[in-house]
Amino acid sequence: MTDHIVTSYDQELKGLAGQIAEMGGLAEGLVADAITALVRGDTALAQKVILTDVRLDRLQRSVEEQAIRVIARRQPMAMDLRDIFGALRVSGDLERVGDLAKNIAKRVIAMGGNVLVKRIVIGVEHLSEIALEQLKDVLDAYTSRDAEEALTVRGRDEEIDALYTSLFRELLTYMMEDPRNITFCTHLLFCAKNVERIGDHATNIAETVHFVVTGEQLVDERPKGDSSSSVSTGNGG
Amino acid sequence: MTDHIVTSYDQELKGLAGQIAEMGGLAEGLVADAITALVRGDTALAQKVILTDVRLDRLQRSVEEQAIRVIARRQPMAMDLRDIFGALRVSGDLERVGDLAKNIAKRVIAMGGNVLVKRIVIGVEHLSEIALEQLKDVLDAYTSRDAEEALTVRGRDEEIDALYTSLFRELLTYMMEDPRNITFCTHLLFCAKNVERIGDHATNIAETVHFVVTGEQLVDERPKGDSSSSVSTGNGG
Repeated sequence: MTDHIVTSYDQELKGLAGQIAEMGGLAEGLVADAITALVRGDTALAQKVILTDVRLDRLQRSVEEQAIRVIARRQPMAMDLRDIFGALRVSGDLERVGDLAKNIAKRVIAMGGNVLVKRIVIGVEHLSEIALEQLKDVLDAYTSRDAEEALTVRGRDEEIDALYTSLFRELLTYMMEDPRNITFCTHLLFCAKNVERIGDHATNIAETVHFVVTGEQLVDERPKGDSSSSVSTGNGG
Repeated sequence: MTDHIVTSYDQELKGLAGQIAEMGGLAEGLVADAITALVRGDTALAQKVILTDVRLDRLQRSVEEQAIRVIARRQPMAMDLRDIFGALRVSGDLERVGDLAKNIAKRVIAMGGNVLVKRIVIGVEHLSEIALEQLKDVLDAYTSRDAEEALTVRGRDEEIDALYTSLFRELLTYMMEDPRNITFCTHLLFCAKNVERIGDHATNIAETVHFVVTGEQLVDERPKGDSSSSVSTGNGG
């Protein structure tokens, strides 16, 4: 951040950064709890995730209101504006991450805590560990305004996509083997998809960090997006 | 919009609004084409959707750069700032709508144009007709800054969620009936989910319109989010 004569202005920007940090911690916690609830079939913990997500939504609104207030009161220069825009983007991504964790929690409750295909659940757990690491690293890169580290995180998203796609194929196989697995596996399919999308949001944040630091938007085709959408129905027959 | 002495400032705000309008038209077209490609099994049209989505991404970046330029050069008052923030939010939602249409197009190609369960495809088509109407109405509400109309659109999202949830159940039944349907139905499941999420983005835009006009964020629990995540696995056995 550039230096300012007006200290209270820095305070305002720091306040914004503080709220983003709080949102980041909350989002990471929601994802971790949602996955724990899934693995243990802990519907009470799932319930807690659903309730806690509300705080994330509130924080996002407050970040936006604060951003408008700061810009309206001061006349930020381009660099600071990018900082404020960055805060808006990141808070938006973190709010979505919370929604995805909440959706996983809802499915845990729908599954009544019965974890039928343990092996796949472990696969989803592993996927979420990578996604959480991505989220943690990119939030660190955001805090330290480290554009290079951000690009590293962005590059690693392909790992999540590949793992998700193999989980996707495995889930289809389980469904074909035994129709009684279908509803359960479909919920797991969406849980895995949610985790893959959490990885995409880490990628978004990485691109925001790059934008905040360099002032340039990344235009090249992002690695974002899984390739399960290309799984041929030929394999299904 | 409030009146300004500086005309070129109005020009800049109008330019922003123009780009949003262009994005809206593009996004609606991508969704319509993706669904047509799905219904007809037209992989060439699907290919076109995938290529066209790039323009939507470019437009979003340009909206963001323009927004920063406007704010940096002028000192917008709160009302205009909300307008600019609104443009940022809406462009973000429209970019996501394009991604969802692109994902449907990818699945059409993966399915090789083979539409096995025609009846479900028609269900997805019907779902998309409602979602497109929602999108069109909320973009009109955005253009005319009509907060009431926006709230009406927001309320209608439940219709999409209910229809999606019944499609979800129907697809599960098809999968259970014949394992050969599973891969195909799973792609359709994600297509339907994408359409349901397009409806969520229309809801987001509705809330943005309300925010731009009134300056207040809607805090009450939004109707957003389908209830298929609550479909019990009991039904699956």
